[in-house]
Amino acid sequence: MTQNIYDDEHFFHRYSALPRSVQGLDGAPEWPALRAMLPALRGQRVIDLGCGFGWFCRWAATQGAAQVEGFDVSERMLERARRETQDSRTRYAQTDLETLSLQPGCCDLAYSALALHYLADLPRLLAEVHRALLPGGALVFSVEHPIYTAPRQPGWMQHASGSSVWPVDGYLDEGARSTDWLAKGVIKQHRTVASYVNALLAGGFSLRRIEEWGPDAVQIAAHPEWALERERPMFLLMAAQREDA
Amino acid sequence: MTQNIYDDEHFFHRYSALPRSVQGLDGAPEWPALRAMLPALRGQRVIDLGCGFGWFCRWAATQGAAQVEGFDVSERMLERARRETQDSRTRYAQTDLETLSLQPGCCDLAYSALALHYLADLPRLLAEVHRALLPGGALVFSVEHPIYTAPRQPGWMQHASGSSVWPVDGYLDEGARSTDWLAKGVIKQHRTVASYVNALLAGGFSLRRIEEWGPDAVQIAAHPEWALERERPMFLLMAAQREDA
Repeated sequence: MTQNIYDDEHFFHRYSALPRSVQGLDGAPEWPALRAMLPALRGQRVIDLGCGFGWFCRWAATQGAAQVEGFDVSERMLERARRETQDSRTRYAQTDLETLSLQPGCCDLAYSALALHYLADLPRLLAEVHRALLPGGALVFSVEHPIYTAPRQPGWMQHASGSSVWPVDGYLDEGARSTDWLAKGVIKQHRTVASYVNALLAGGFSLRRIEEWGPDAVQIAAHPEWALERERPMFLLMAAQREDA
Repeated sequence: MTQNIYDDEHFFHRYSALPRSVQGLDGAPEWPALRAMLPALRGQRVIDLGCGFGWFCRWAATQGAAQVEGFDVSERMLERARRETQDSRTRYAQTDLETLSLQPGCCDLAYSALALHYLADLPRLLAEVHRALLPGGALVFSVEHPIYTAPRQPGWMQHASGSSVWPVDGYLDEGARSTDWLAKGVIKQHRTVASYVNALLAGGFSLRRIEEWGPDAVQIAAHPEWALERERPMFLLMAAQREDA
């Protein structure tokens, strides 16, 4: 199964202190861009793959979703999610996305935020999501951007000119990357933009829109320290639709 | 209009000496990948946007295309194209792709190799191509990859570890890049992968496949000096289809 770093004591504590863990969706700078890619949720049945503390699930309920189901590998995260959710339309289930099994036709929207780059077998999950979605249903997700995950030694470098550059190597060599993010040896799966796109197309989805996220001018005015994030995209956001056969 | 560097004496001579100018399609390492994205050409009406010396046009005729039309801004390139083409199905026309005007429904396949990254207004061209294609018609093209065009100061850097890395910056800031490639001050337009994808989708195309090209193991065995090209993709190849309204 996927490394479950989120149940590591040390990692969990540091993750819990991130703005996106404390403030929820509004603490995630890419959220407005991701939200803009979502369909209207009123009356929709929604699943969240890698739901964490349940912020998106609770938001989906406030948008009038008919039913919300959150999946996560981390029991610790689900404990807090359950504690903080008072809504009869929302359920949570502990599961490894590598072996997730969904009811065919169970949902109108599959959502996932920053989870699929942990997955070794993306096509298997996409096949499962395709079966779970009704025809015309939407899949909207974010992952760490391949430019961000590619480097063997991630971290800004100084160019001779004095500017900061992001050192890309290994881009075309997909597979596991071990990084030190909140804890040592966190394993993420690097794949190319083309692999994400082609896996969707081969899996029976049509592509609706993609975004390579960096902060906009308003966000940088509010957080000048984010300016560097425009030099290379940190997140890749994708919206796809289940094609009818 | 677009800078027409190809009619610059110095540039033209150096460009004419490149393997892809001397050996044609087989001198272009990305050609097998691009060819694999093409539909069958027998009986098809084909246009080539930025046809250069006409290598693709002549190849299309050998594949049984019913009609082939090559467009290029460079009179010098078209002179050689005409001289080297003996085929009544093939015509060439001098035109700036920024102002290109095509007959509605004139073709089944629009092809373009390494030309569209010179274009400032991609949506305008895509609208023209959309009108020119019959419903279901294909658009297949290559451009320099956004990772390749982004840097303000392109060129491999040495990482402290000793490996070569590609210094990405400016990725999200689209627009003109002046590079010294065969001549000083060649102007190319950097845009993101998302911009290419979203321009296609907004222009009424569905995406069929994308490739981020780097040499494969067989090519590296034959050309060990190409190994570095796997560290970051040099070309972006895209196949799209005109959607029916």
